[in-house]
Amino acid sequence: MPFDRALIDRLSPHAVDEVAKDIPAALERIAVVEGAQWRPAWTDLYFPGIPDDLRADLLSVIADRVPPASPYDPTRLAALRALFDGLGIDALLVPRANEHRTEDLPTYAKRLEWITGFTGSAGTAMIARDSAWLFIDGRYVLQAAKELDSALFESRHFQRPPLWEFLGQTLPERTRIGYDARLHSSQEVVAIEKALADTTLTLVPLSENPIDRLWTNRPPKPFSAVVPHPIERTGVSSEDKRAAMAADLLKLGARRLVLSQLDSIAWAFNIRGGDTAFTPVVESHAIIHDNGQADLFVETRKLSPEVLSHLGKRVSLHAMEAFEGFLGDLGGGGATVALDLARTPKWIETRLASAGARIVHQEDPTEVARLRKTTEELNGFREAMTRDGVAMVRFMRWFSEYPLDKPLTEMMISEKVTAFRAMDPTFRGPSFATIVGSGPNGAVIHYHPTKDSDRVIEPGDVIVLDSGGQYLSGTTDITRTLCRGTAGNFERSVITAVLSCHATLASTRFPMGTTGTQLDGITRANLWAMGIEYDHGTGHGIGSFLAVHEGAIRISKEGRRAILAGNVLSNEPGAYLPGRFGCRHENAVVAREGEIGLTGETFLEFETLTAAPFPRDLILVEALSPNQVAWLDAYHAFVLRLLSPHLEGADLDWLKGACAPL
Amino acid sequence: MPFDRALIDRLSPHAVDEVAKDIPAALERIAVVEGAQWRPAWTDLYFPGIPDDLRADLLSVIADRVPPASPYDPTRLAALRALFDGLGIDALLVPRANEHRTEDLPTYAKRLEWITGFTGSAGTAMIARDSAWLFIDGRYVLQAAKELDSALFESRHFQRPPLWEFLGQTLPERTRIGYDARLHSSQEVVAIEKALADTTLTLVPLSENPIDRLWTNRPPKPFSAVVPHPIERTGVSSEDKRAAMAADLLKLGARRLVLSQLDSIAWAFNIRGGDTAFTPVVESHAIIHDNGQADLFVETRKLSPEVLSHLGKRVSLHAMEAFEGFLGDLGGGGATVALDLARTPKWIETRLASAGARIVHQEDPTEVARLRKTTEELNGFREAMTRDGVAMVRFMRWFSEYPLDKPLTEMMISEKVTAFRAMDPTFRGPSFATIVGSGPNGAVIHYHPTKDSDRVIEPGDVIVLDSGGQYLSGTTDITRTLCRGTAGNFERSVITAVLSCHATLASTRFPMGTTGTQLDGITRANLWAMGIEYDHGTGHGIGSFLAVHEGAIRISKEGRRAILAGNVLSNEPGAYLPGRFGCRHENAVVAREGEIGLTGETFLEFETLTAAPFPRDLILVEALSPNQVAWLDAYHAFVLRLLSPHLEGADLDWLKGACAPL
Repeated sequence: MPFDRALIDRLSPHAVDEVAKDIPAALERIAVVEGAQWRPAWTDLYFPGIPDDLRADLLSVIADRVPPASPYDPTRLAALRALFDGLGIDALLVPRANEHRTEDLPTYAKRLEWITGFTGSAGTAMIARDSAWLFIDGRYVLQAAKELDSALFESRHFQRPPLWEFLGQTLPERTRIGYDARLHSSQEVVAIEKALADTTLTLVPLSENPIDRLWTNRPPKPFSAVVPHPIERTGVSSEDKRAAMAADLLKLGARRLVLSQLDSIAWAFNIRGGDTAFTPVVESHAIIHDNGQADLFVETRKLSPEVLSHLGKRVSLHAMEAFEGFLGDLGGGGATVALDLARTPKWIETRLASAGARIVHQEDPTEVARLRKTTEELNGFREAMTRDGVAMVRFMRWFSEYPLDKPLTEMMISEKVTAFRAMDPTFRGPSFATIVGSGPNGAVIHYHPTKDSDRVIEPGDVIVLDSGGQYLSGTTDITRTLCRGTAGNFERSVITAVLSCHATLASTRFPMGTTGTQLDGITRANLWAMGIEYDHGTGHGIGSFLAVHEGAIRISKEGRRAILAGNVLSNEPGAYLPGRFGCRHENAVVAREGEIGLTGETFLEFETLTAAPFPRDLILVEALSPNQVAWLDAYHAFVLRLLSPHLEGADLDWLKGACAPL
Repeated sequence: MPFDRALIDRLSPHAVDEVAKDIPAALERIAVVEGAQWRPAWTDLYFPGIPDDLRADLLSVIADRVPPASPYDPTRLAALRALFDGLGIDALLVPRANEHRTEDLPTYAKRLEWITGFTGSAGTAMIARDSAWLFIDGRYVLQAAKELDSALFESRHFQRPPLWEFLGQTLPERTRIGYDARLHSSQEVVAIEKALADTTLTLVPLSENPIDRLWTNRPPKPFSAVVPHPIERTGVSSEDKRAAMAADLLKLGARRLVLSQLDSIAWAFNIRGGDTAFTPVVESHAIIHDNGQADLFVETRKLSPEVLSHLGKRVSLHAMEAFEGFLGDLGGGGATVALDLARTPKWIETRLASAGARIVHQEDPTEVARLRKTTEELNGFREAMTRDGVAMVRFMRWFSEYPLDKPLTEMMISEKVTAFRAMDPTFRGPSFATIVGSGPNGAVIHYHPTKDSDRVIEPGDVIVLDSGGQYLSGTTDITRTLCRGTAGNFERSVITAVLSCHATLASTRFPMGTTGTQLDGITRANLWAMGIEYDHGTGHGIGSFLAVHEGAIRISKEGRRAILAGNVLSNEPGAYLPGRFGCRHENAVVAREGEIGLTGETFLEFETLTAAPFPRDLILVEALSPNQVAWLDAYHAFVLRLLSPHLEGADLDWLKGACAPL
């Protein structure tokens, strides 16, 4: 394992005492950091006060040392099957998931990719003795065809017929299907068992994942610094959050609550890390006691003295490896333990129950609590939106001035918008993989440019740019539809219709109790009148310097939860004309209480948080209603007011032009 | 039992042979008809060709013989409690329900009213040894206070706290709660058991309802003629409907399906009756075989020779009393039996399971099949709407010409609108209890005028008139908001806003897959903008000469099912200003396939079926959008086109004025 000895020597004077004293230990940390996604904070932790140039050197050394993705090796499948007899199974279920249900997986957890070669962000494989299938959704048909070895895997749509219906009819009689009980929630396992009830197939939980045994050059686990998320940002102390959870436990008659979702834990303890690419979370487990004390299981070397004091004495810290033993002890004591069976890995329930615990289901209380942002969190969002708006304005000016005769590609735009965000000192990385879809690529809803797919953007091409940032103050998510040069009339009419939907939702009033589904219908109506539907939700919850998708609330066909004051959501209608172009306009909004209505209900309304102009050249003003034009003018006035103190020169001039009344 | 011997003598020549031969048997039928709701058809069955004057005499004799409602007797409660020890219970659960889950209960099934004195249309009582409660919703607070003897019953809101949470905490330890297993679905019992899981309370199913033992002068069961509903009206034969159900059973691996909802049975066998006040159904049970044969359990004396031949040889007829034995036989044969556990009384599941049957849950297949009306049913709806529109126009002209200085009450309007409907020879009675709410009464959503509440309508009063009819061709449900004389400006602005919502839904296009909840949001948005919410759904399914509320589909916050072509629904937004007035505009619509949209989806649109003008004097044209005015003018042109061939003279002149462009 070669490394740059000279660099370590240069680092020493800046390193914390322990590092200075023990260079070999520091080296080990540089080794384990390979999996880390949020490296700048890591350098802050171990090398406080490090000069920028030295930090850049360090980061580049680490970056160089990330092993190149090892090419797919078709012999892996046979090696895996050779383990089946020893495990007492005839087939293995391989989901794209880790034991914390994070949306973006660290490399070490990408088992599906390792065994199939498929790199898409959603899919499930079933590997039987003589056959193997990859089940995907409609987005990944082409990609799977390209990436899979068709001699080894058959790719199938996961709903046509439903995965378990297909397997129930196709797998040989009495197939024993192994699954990693850390990668499926209790509820998922129940659903699979129900689907298989009328078959001879059985599920076999595995205590160890056989892929891990074969994957010898597996990347290390992420190793990112854990930092406090201060009360000035959260508004509620971890102690108070835990006290509320403890009160719920007492009501429920349960002694402990087990949390394993990383954003739940980060929220509950007011800590942030960098263990996944886009969400500032910490790989961990947690047990909340009915007296507000807690056990936190985490790689303790990630913790700074500052975070130790922030966590306080009522949080006991343990190594990750100790978690299983604690579950056993809880069970041995016959405790009643609350779990969210839809969100907690099956193995936790099994471990507790087999040791003697009584399990009660409780929806993860942080899921609901997190939805209602505090005043401090909302102020943080407003700060983050200001910082993000400045970056977006700089980017949009750059884009508008980019010569039409110079080559411009999707990847260039993706890198440029991140570079403008990175000018902000509180920026901690993108909040998701930037989407830049130009021309026909824009009509592919989940398209991301890669080196292979990158496309030169021609004059007249419409571009969907969906990007966001993680800032210490909050998380952003914004989509603007742009055009290189002049857009056609049809394109402008569609772009305007989508904007009318966006404006409709932004200015809708609705009584307490209104669900996301009702608002979804209201948003779509103008596009439906044109015969246009979009195949995604209208809005998702957004975390506060956490996951950009907070799943417990939605404005969509499935959004059954009522929208409450303090909910932060995206407002993102779109239109996708296959083979032609796509369009989406997205801002983040917060619901807040308005007036009491004539019929006595409290009404809510949205405040738009995101601050960046819409592309006025693409709007057909005459196709908007007077109310929609008024909303847009008021919005642009707000953007100008908010951002102009932070911009100057040509950027400020550009903004003034972009925000003039229509 | 006195009766009019002379009348019977007059009847004989018109009666069917058997009646003529056996006057005592005919007399017995006149006796049992006391519970019947749909008497004209009964006279047709037994006295075909009877002259109108004689029929009227007969009906008046029968009407006279309906026993007056016996006044509430507070000693009933003590008598009931005296039975507890013998039954091994400490409390009795009394729902407002019969074993067929009909919305309108025959008098003999009004056990809740008998034991509590409460006459409202929804409520549940719990009678314990020392206490008794009536659980109601917000609509019935005042009525319960008036009707209940507060020394005997405490009335409580059923959700504050939730009924079972309250009882779990309030009933003495180890209370054994008896319940009539015919009056609760399996799913309800499971839900109650779950709610009581952490208590010491237990549920005890009773094989006989103790109230029935005490209720000695209980009215007889309804006895109405069963008539065929011909294929010209249904479009699909009962044989074909049963064949489809049989195919589903084979897929499910079940041998039998048990149906006990009366509209399910009426639909499946293409028969109609009159055993409830507003829905032309027949008290019955049915068992569908996996080969399409069926057993129908019914009071066989209700069946005419015509209906026997209509049912055919593959339907075996049995007395109601034979049903339980058949369940036992099925179980004894170890058959797999499909039940809709949410809609089938618990006792059926228990009887089958205890006899050895295997139960599989299947959503009542008629619920879903009934939602997609056939061409013949839609043509029937159009015919019924024409007949109903003629009655509404005659009524509205009468109303518009009624002198302002002559007293007019809500009951007078209710009777008048029914009288105009009854001029149609195919009218079979109202499809629900007519709502006439004038002035402040209109703001009480579920208000029905009664002798006690009847109100004189003053000039300037806004009136909500919600009524409908059962016609051989179909079921209607229409609401018009009227005003006696001139309405105020505020009233007109609210009435116009509600109409804009109605027009919005009527003219909305939406892609396949859109749910009722999305459409609900779209409909409400214009009223929300004014700060007005209405506390009821926007639309409900409507049966085809069946129940006016077909519950499996809704346009409401809970309407999760996608709207499909052929669904017939109401479109009825409203506004209710407490203490002032109410407003609702309701038409029936049918969803139908429209064009393929730009993004490739099939779009649906609504065709409005109901034909009657909206009150033009109450509309502020300038408050409607150009699209809404265009929709309204087109609708009025349709109404005029459809109805004018059936009207003449002053009625036709009035219609022409009412349908002129705005």
